[in-house]
Amino acid sequence: MAFPRPVSADDIEALAVGAWILGTGGGGSPYCGLLNMRRLYREGIVVSLLDPDELADDDAVAVVSTMGAPLVGQERLADPAPLEHAVRMMETYVGRRFAAVMSVEIGGGNGLAPFLAAARLGLPVVDADAMGRAFPEAQMTSFAIHDLTMYPLTLADVRDNAVIVARAASWTWMERLSRKACVEVGSVAATCKAPRTGREVKDCAILRTVSKAIRLGHTVRRAHRGHEDPVRAVVAAEGGRLLFRGKIQDVARRTTEGFLRGRATLDGLDEDRGRTFALAFQNEFAVGWLDGAPRVMTPDLICVMDTLSGEAIGTETLRYGQRVSVVALPAPPVLLTPKGLEHVGPRAFGYDLDFVSVFT
Amino acid sequence: MAFPRPVSADDIEALAVGAWILGTGGGGSPYCGLLNMRRLYREGIVVSLLDPDELADDDAVAVVSTMGAPLVGQERLADPAPLEHAVRMMETYVGRRFAAVMSVEIGGGNGLAPFLAAARLGLPVVDADAMGRAFPEAQMTSFAIHDLTMYPLTLADVRDNAVIVARAASWTWMERLSRKACVEVGSVAATCKAPRTGREVKDCAILRTVSKAIRLGHTVRRAHRGHEDPVRAVVAAEGGRLLFRGKIQDVARRTTEGFLRGRATLDGLDEDRGRTFALAFQNEFAVGWLDGAPRVMTPDLICVMDTLSGEAIGTETLRYGQRVSVVALPAPPVLLTPKGLEHVGPRAFGYDLDFVSVFT
Repeated sequence: MAFPRPVSADDIEALAVGAWILGTGGGGSPYCGLLNMRRLYREGIVVSLLDPDELADDDAVAVVSTMGAPLVGQERLADPAPLEHAVRMMETYVGRRFAAVMSVEIGGGNGLAPFLAAARLGLPVVDADAMGRAFPEAQMTSFAIHDLTMYPLTLADVRDNAVIVARAASWTWMERLSRKACVEVGSVAATCKAPRTGREVKDCAILRTVSKAIRLGHTVRRAHRGHEDPVRAVVAAEGGRLLFRGKIQDVARRTTEGFLRGRATLDGLDEDRGRTFALAFQNEFAVGWLDGAPRVMTPDLICVMDTLSGEAIGTETLRYGQRVSVVALPAPPVLLTPKGLEHVGPRAFGYDLDFVSVFT
Repeated sequence: MAFPRPVSADDIEALAVGAWILGTGGGGSPYCGLLNMRRLYREGIVVSLLDPDELADDDAVAVVSTMGAPLVGQERLADPAPLEHAVRMMETYVGRRFAAVMSVEIGGGNGLAPFLAAARLGLPVVDADAMGRAFPEAQMTSFAIHDLTMYPLTLADVRDNAVIVARAASWTWMERLSRKACVEVGSVAATCKAPRTGREVKDCAILRTVSKAIRLGHTVRRAHRGHEDPVRAVVAAEGGRLLFRGKIQDVARRTTEGFLRGRATLDGLDEDRGRTFALAFQNEFAVGWLDGAPRVMTPDLICVMDTLSGEAIGTETLRYGQRVSVVALPAPPVLLTPKGLEHVGPRAFGYDLDFVSVFT
């Protein structure tokens, strides 16, 4: 396949579906981003996808995301302008033009964020991200696991506020400083993370996750059109595991410190009748317990899907009575290394659990 | 007098005393800054003072301060390095070299802050500030009252964290964004505020407040040496008003949101025996009540001085049993205009009081 290749309007639709599944409950709903992309495509814009191998070693790549608490994204709608602003600020600050844009996380609305930015900037999107899913914090990336430099970061809101974290003493300090700025402007902000070279992307990103999300979306849409079970289709196509089928019985949710935290409990249906499943989340689902025993935990991808449509359900849209399936998908290998687990294993989220994968 | 004129070691001592009085309880204790200056002077450094009239209209002036909650400055000691770092960052960010340094507030340790920076940068200090006293928030300056641009701001801590507030939608947004960054790094940080031109300083700063602080300090020191009453000497020399003499009976103090807030109550002594005086503060003293009725309020300078030594007492060092005198000194005229009172009058601090000056 030749690169950069134009991404079709149909692929954008599939990307929104697939990214929402890879979001593991977080990354923000892709819905507003999708509406933006439909409008841009109707205006004749087509964004191209660039395979990471096509990057020159010294190309500069903009790493973008909309940062914040997913629930807030339900109220303050996605807009490509602050993302463009964050990228332009970074170009001015570092004195270099970017060759391409990529997402820090393929999951949720952030799977579409680089497309929104790229459409305004006239740049291609790199087929890669730094999580292979979504995670809530800045140090939870393959770039952090590889000890790349964490600064500078630019952050822009819709009001003409703009902050640059020029230096940070650690990835955790970068998270703290950028999070406070994000919370202050309303718990949602467009960010351009530390720029990456083409070499860094090729060596330290998680590769071809945009195509993966598009593929996943097409799997769901194809199954849905063919009146097949979309959840089983995803499990079969991606080497996943169906963990539970049930109905949401309770949700406790609070937006705090720039995150959406909470728990949900599910009553079993069908083969799981009589059993319960509990989920804890910080933007993304972190741990799931079957009848009180840990069943699945980060960094394995914990995906909650509508049992009938196969559409993902985010932590901000979980509600009583939804019929859902809990699916695990394999995590990118870099997250499963000892260093990776320090950054994104259950202890990084405050759970005193040794990581056990569903897939071992 | 010729400018720039070298400031003697004796003047630096007087500056620390005078700035602490003009701090009206805040601006941070000048003690650590004074120790730093003594060391720098012993090493042969002499800082020069530049009259604002000597600035060229297009000179760039660095406006520095140590920002945060005064109580924290008692634990994390003043260090000129982060101030230098903040100024150097600003030079890099705006792409210009500064011709001079000035303080955003002459009060407290921030009266010495530009001297610490200037000593490391080899620049003169401008004989001016933007408050003529100390105030807790970014929008409480003559620059804000004159509607000058509020960004960019650079902020540095002792750990190698550095933030640039590149744009702010208003002075209040600048306060909010810089305050959160300051709180996150421990409620104390070195800042370089929006750079000013020589013209802006001449038109919009409060002029010759460094010499005023030095003069005030000499008044206290001279009275002390001559076994005269230093409080009455200050009142006489500066056109002030002695409001109350008493003993501190109670102090309630909390460090919150990057500020030191609280109240103190005083029992009267001598001619004020049988009366009580209450003081409310947010870093600086904001309002004083005599027997329950408002007696003095911001922007009039409310200075609490040790009755015997004439040394100022900061809101972080008030304690039970201190014999103190409460003195009012006149505020700079720009603070008393309707626009000035919007920024720094009692309502700006949450007190539903119409401003009445002690001096009218």
